[in-house]
Parts: sequence; C-alpha cells; structure tokens
Amino acid sequence: MFLTRPNPRYFTRTNRILASQLRYYSAPGEGTIPPAKKIYVPTSGTYPLGFKAGSAHVGVKASNSRFDDLALIASDTPCAGAAVFTTNKFQAAPVTVSRDMLKRRKGEGIRAVIVNSGCANAVTGRGGIEDALSMGAEADKCFISDNNGEDDGQGSRSVVMSTGVIGQRLPIQKITSKIPTAYYNLGSTHDHWLSTARAICTTDTFPKLLSRTFMLPGSQEKYHIAGMTKGAGMIHPNMATLLGIICTDAPVSAGPLQSALSSAITKSFNSISIDGDTSTNDTVALLANGAAGGPSISSTSSERFQAFQETLTNFAIDLAKLVVRDGEGATKFVTIRVTNAESYKDAHRVASTIARSPLVKTALYGKDANWGRILCATGYAESVSSVIPTETSVSFIPSDGSDALRLLVKGEPERVDEARAGKILEAEDLEILVRLSEGRGWKEEAMFWTCDFSHEYVTINGDYRT
Amino acid sequence: MFLTRPNPRYFTRTNRILASQLRYYSAPGEGTIPPAKKIYVPTSGTYPLGFKAGSAHVGVKASNSRFDDLALIASDTPCAGAAVFTTNKFQAAPVTVSRDMLKRRKGEGIRAVIVNSGCANAVTGRGGIEDALSMGAEADKCFISDNNGEDDGQGSRSVVMSTGVIGQRLPIQKITSKIPTAYYNLGSTHDHWLSTARAICTTDTFPKLLSRTFMLPGSQEKYHIAGMTKGAGMIHPNMATLLGIICTDAPVSAGPLQSALSSAITKSFNSISIDGDTSTNDTVALLANGAAGGPSISSTSSERFQAFQETLTNFAIDLAKLVVRDGEGATKFVTIRVTNAESYKDAHRVASTIARSPLVKTALYGKDANWGRILCATGYAESVSSVIPTETSVSFIPSDGSDALRLLVKGEPERVDEARAGKILEAEDLEILVRLSEGRGWKEEAMFWTCDFSHEYVTINGDYRT
Repeated sequence: MFLTRPNPRYFTRTNRILASQLRYYSAPGEGTIPPAKKIYVPTSGTYPLGFKAGSAHVGVKASNSRFDDLALIASDTPCAGAAVFTTNKFQAAPVTVSRDMLKRRKGEGIRAVIVNSGCANAVTGRGGIEDALSMGAEADKCFISDNNGEDDGQGSRSVVMSTGVIGQRLPIQKITSKIPTAYYNLGSTHDHWLSTARAICTTDTFPKLLSRTFMLPGSQEKYHIAGMTKGAGMIHPNMATLLGIICTDAPVSAGPLQSALSSAITKSFNSISIDGDTSTNDTVALLANGAAGGPSISSTSSERFQAFQETLTNFAIDLAKLVVRDGEGATKFVTIRVTNAESYKDAHRVASTIARSPLVKTALYGKDANWGRILCATGYAESVSSVIPTETSVSFIPSDGSDALRLLVKGEPERVDEARAGKILEAEDLEILVRLSEGRGWKEEAMFWTCDFSHEYVTINGDYRT
Repeated sequence: MFLTRPNPRYFTRTNRILASQLRYYSAPGEGTIPPAKKIYVPTSGTYPLGFKAGSAHVGVKASNSRFDDLALIASDTPCAGAAVFTTNKFQAAPVTVSRDMLKRRKGEGIRAVIVNSGCANAVTGRGGIEDALSMGAEADKCFISDNNGEDDGQGSRSVVMSTGVIGQRLPIQKITSKIPTAYYNLGSTHDHWLSTARAICTTDTFPKLLSRTFMLPGSQEKYHIAGMTKGAGMIHPNMATLLGIICTDAPVSAGPLQSALSSAITKSFNSISIDGDTSTNDTVALLANGAAGGPSISSTSSERFQAFQETLTNFAIDLAKLVVRDGEGATKFVTIRVTNAESYKDAHRVASTIARSPLVKTALYGKDANWGRILCATGYAESVSSVIPTETSVSFIPSDGSDALRLLVKGEPERVDEARAGKILEAEDLEILVRLSEGRGWKEEAMFWTCDFSHEYVTINGDYRT
C-alpha cells in the first residue's frame, strides 16, 4: 500500500524535455536533430586549405546499423601537430599511443587524425594499446603512396582517438577494414566536414562544427581555422569524454602550436562542465599545415603568435560552448563569471565548484532562484583564499540585456523580486556573476560554462550501456 | 513538431520510485513513512539517564500546518558538550553562535540543544546572528529556575541548530514563543525521543534515531548513548545540511569529549555522500552528563577513553548510514571500500571521488555494472599518489554473501558475467571494493557510504523551495 501522489507537472515537463532531447547512441542522423538545436549546426563554412575530412560506417556498436562512426581528418602534406590530453590516471590506449607519437615526432610530420566513436578503447590493457597502434598504422597506409613509400623511421603519423563505452575492446578488424573507405570519402566541402563531425558523436544530439577566417599581423594572407568536437556527458575540467580536432592553414611550428593550444584549452575546454566527471579519453588535437602561406610562427614571443593565440582561444571557447549547449539532458546554458579574485586559479576554482554542484544544477533546472546554493558552493570551493563571506556578491545577468538582478550584496541578501527572478530563469541562457571582493583591488576573473541537471540526464546515464 | 519516443520503461520505473519516495517538506508524520523505510525506525530504545527530549509545532515554513518543527534536547544538569561544524566558508548564524558558545564555556556547563527545521538561518547577515542568539537565550530561560536564577556570567548554555532553506530569515517570534511548549513537552520515553527526532527532519522520509548501551573498562556501570540525525540532500564530507545530536550518560570531560567526537566524525559523517554538496549548517553535537556515574574520563590516553572512542565511532557510523539510507531519491545503499592505499587520506579521497561521481551514481541507479566509470573516478581523484593503473582491482561484493564479482584485476578487465552482475545490482545494498595495490605492502583503507542518483533526486531538488 503506497501513499503515492505523483506530481502531474513532473510528467508533463518530462515529456516536454524528452521531446527536446531525443538522443540516439552514436552520431545523430540528419533528420533527428532536435529543432531547438538546429541553429547550432552550420549550413556552410570556410575550411582550411590543404585539409580534407571523411567518414565511414563501421558499426562499432552492434546496434548502430546506420550512422558513420569512423572519421578521418587529413592534411595534404605533413604538418605540425599539438594535443592536450586527459589528466585522468587511467588513460585510454589511444591517449597513450597519440601522446607517444607526438613526442616521438616532436609534433612535426603529422598527416592525420583517425577517430572512432562507439567504444573508448579505455582500460583495455595491452590488447587495447595494440588496437590503437593498428588504427594509427592503418591510417598511415593511406598516405604511403604520397611519401613515395618512404618510411622516415619515426613511426606513425596519425593521431588516434576513440570515444564511447569504457572497458570493452574495439572491434579492430571491422575498424581497420573501413579506414580505406574513410580515406576514399575524404573531401574538402562543407558536407564532408559536417558528416565527419557527425561521425565522432556519441550521445550528442547534434554535430559540433565551427569554421572561421582570420588575418595575422605581418602578412596579407587570409587564414582559416575549422574544428569539430563531441561531448555531451562526462565533461569537466580536464576535458572528459570529449574529443576535439582543430585544423588551421596558418604556418605555426610545433613548439608555439603546443603553447597556443595548452593556453587556449585552459580557458575553453577546461572551463566547461556537464557533470563533473573527467574521463579517460579526452583529447583535443590541433594541426597546422601552413597551406595558406606567409611567414611561419616559430616562437611564442612575436606579435604574430599573440594574435594567433587570441584567435585560437576565442575559437576554442566557442567550440567548447557547443558542448555545453548539448549537455546530456540540459535545458539551460549557464555562464558563470567569478570576478575580483586574488588569482585566476581561485576564480576558476570557485566557478568550477559552482558549475558542478548538483544542488545548483537541479535548482536551475527547476527555475528556482536559489542563490543560497550558489553561495554554498562558493563557500566549499577547496584551497581558495579569495572567498570572504562579508564581501561576496551574487547577481543574475539576464540574457535579454535587462538590468542585473542582485541577489546578495556583500554578504547580505537582497529582497528579491521572485517574479522577475522566475522570468529570468525561464530563458535558456543565464549568467551568474559572483564578485568575490570589491574593496581589495583584486582583479582576476574566470569564466565557466555549464548546464543544468535534469531528469533526462539521469535517464541517459542510467541506461547508457543498454 | 517533435520526434518524440518517450521510453515507457522510464515512466513505469519513475512511478514505482515515486511510490517508495514520498517526501514532504518537513518532518514526516507517523503514517507517511515509506513501507521500505519502516525497518529503520526503532520501536523502542534505551536512553541516557538525565536527558530529556521534546518537540513543538511552530510552522517555520508556512506550508507546514501539522508537523512539529522545533526540537529541544536537555540535560537535567549542566554537562560537557562538544561539536563538529561545517567547513563551508559561509557559515550559518547558528554555527557561528554555537561555536562561540562552546568556546566561551570551554565545553562545560551546557544544558540544551535547541533546533528548528524549515529554515537554515544561513546567509542572513547580522539579523540572522541575533535570531540565533535569541533562540539560545529563550532556551536558556527554561533552565533559569534550575540554576536558582543564577547567571554564571558565561552567557548561553544552549547549542543552537537550524536546517532548511538558505537565505531567508527565521520567523523568530513564532519560534521563541514555542520554546516553552517544547520545554513543557520534554520527557524521557522512547516516544519523546522519536517525536523529537522527527521534528528536526526536512525532506527526510523517516526520523533517524538510534540508542545503545555499553560498558567501559574500569567500572561496572551500564552506560547509554542515543542520537538523532537528519540529512537527505546536500550531504558530503564535511557534513552538509546535516544535523546530529548525540547524548551519553557516561562521564567524559570536555577535552576528551571533543577529541572523541572529531575522530568519530571523520569515519562516519565525513565518510558519507549524497550529492557532494557541503552545506552552511552542518553540526554534530555530543553531550555527556555523567549521570550513570563511574570514574570520569578526563584524558585521551586511558584505556577507558579508547573504549569510549571506539563505541562512539561505531555509533556515529551507524547513525550516518541512516542518512545515506534516506538519500534524496536514493534506491541504492552503496558501501565503497578502498584498500591497499599508501595513506588513509588517499584511500578516503578515492572513495569520496567515486561516491560523488554523477556517472557512477546514475549507472548504479540504472543497475548497470559500468565499472569503467568507477575506474574513471578513481583516476581523477585529486592529489592522490596511491593510484597505479596496472595494480588497481575492482570488485562488486554482493549483499547476499555470495562470492565477489571481479570486474578488473590489476588493470586488466575480467570477462564479466553480466547476468550475475545484473542480479547483484538488483539488491538495494552493494559494496564496491577497490584495491589500489597488492604488491607494495600498503595497508591503509577507508570506507565510504553513498547512494545512487535518480530521477527523484532531480524532482526533489528542482522543486525544493516551491
């Protein structure tokens, strides 16, 4: 005998969210992107010279009989490559293999990125390492004729990535047998890039692709940068089950390329959070082939490098934001800005702690202006010296450009217009501004992007393997 | 036009969980405890001599027209008191006031603990401090006649606690006007203790009360210990919106009492997690009035102290486990044991990281033997040196006493009998055993208790204030 009174509002709401969240495992097909997400999928783009992208269907997950799940991104010529990898101690085999490859080659002479979705090849022991090496070797074969069959003695030229379930071996024969198909399918049109971006997806509801042109001081060339990413769950600082591939035709040599990427990642992919979990597989790779010409960037001290760094950082931020837009079950896109901190590290840590608080995230889902939970998370951020309760202020910055709604000013609660707060929280986008101190002259600030925690998050992640 | 295919299994399951999770805000009434939880509510007890408990109805939350939400626990004589408080930088007013009181009195001469549920009196500025002082002062008045009207000049003798919504002021007049009623209702029967335990609840589905008798070496007295706690959400190391009140008639002076409590809390209330949030209000207080007689424990070096310490720790662990049993939306009770670590800190940190991973918790809810997520969380535990991927083993220890199910042995995945794994995960109770190393002679281990993450957690916390 249960005394049940299920909340009817709950079911109505859940239905509505299910409608906006339709998720398949693996790469969404063209027609299945939720209507609200279609605006994030570009219908055209300008792609870097000398790069091609292609995909193929493997069926890594037996249930995937339709969608491409193998992606190949290749440079016409050997190019510079850099990457940032997960800090998780359990690194997936492709992380180990790609890191070794880039180290051995000192980031030069790279030809391709080969990616499968559907299986992460993580915690797969020695066999998993062999599988990742096979993927790279098979991708290399595609380019042997380009090198006149010559082996430069430095081994593979391919970055290998995998994403999907942990602890299962790859169906490696199936994958390697389809790498020639992906190579055959390479092309440089928008459709090629988009289908490749789709092939790296797992529970994503839309492919994440961006492209942009830029100039650099000291030359007249028009440069291009394009990137794709996949995310959805397990996203938190240090990047999680997140893959990113960024290509540019600007001429940047390996050293400065790695510096620029590492710095850009801190403010982009390491400043987003879906669920606070950090995965075994995250990798963001950056290739630069110099195909657009102009003087090469070979040190980090030039004005030209600074400009490239800024372009790359902003590009990576926009790419990372797409991951949050598609957070598993997300109904909100929340920017957290923590200002007036003693150090960037403090600001970043407070923002990160707010971003991963389940209580903050469920309140946002419930459209509840529960700033107490924001403050509470601020107060338990670890190893932070900039939090002084009597100087802390919290506001909501509405997405419609109207005035900030002050919730707490220097530790004292404001009388909040709940109706207005409710209205602000109806919008998909919201900024939470936390000022840590106003009188001390502290100037550091950090931005973080996160989403809410919904019923659908639980549904997706309770059922992931089935 | 949405392409919706809601999962019918999802709704059936949600209905079933709603049935087992009926939650009111504030103190559950007698008849509304979910059937599955009734076994955790004692029908009798043996309570410490010289302590009384009582409750009263205030209606701190306007919507609470029925249930007692004010609790008073009092010692017949001035007694020793100790407490452990939240480490959140935003400490609620009652935390500040109670900490100051215990410090001023050096933990001696305490008479009562006064608690309201429904409002946390947190982030309420200077006014909130005055409210907390008023609550303490009004409780003190009840005992003025006992002291022959004498004021010993050291101020309040009452520990003050509040739990509920953050950032709202207490309806202090309503509360103080009912303190005499709570005093009038004081008594020492099981029913008095149970109704008082019920009055401190918020979203708890059942009152959490335990009592026990024990002996100490060096005397023949039978001692009693009784305790109540409340929890549900926002529970993580450093105790969260969690209150605990433990009373014993053993004779322990203030210094050793505080040592014993601090040590017990590390292995009990600081080793549980519901959602990883740490609140502004958590307080566990321990009172010892010596009413059962025998030689006093006045130092931490005696055998008698060691025995008391052990009794208290085990009692606090059992009390803390009741909080996990009632985790918001929980359908699972999960013990995490991390062994073969280099230090207790490492083992505790790994266990804590697994316990708060949303991906682990949703997998448990989905009855998915996704050990990859357990490993993944192990790998991102911060500042831990004991994690060596090639030496890590993970097993499920079934609650029915059958053999352990090995999932990963020294970094290599086992071929898992998924049918058996599924069967093990059907049970409410499960132990996850993570061995960090087997060859290095590391011996430290830590236990942690947590629950799963369900749809109902999201429902409860998305709607909390409404």
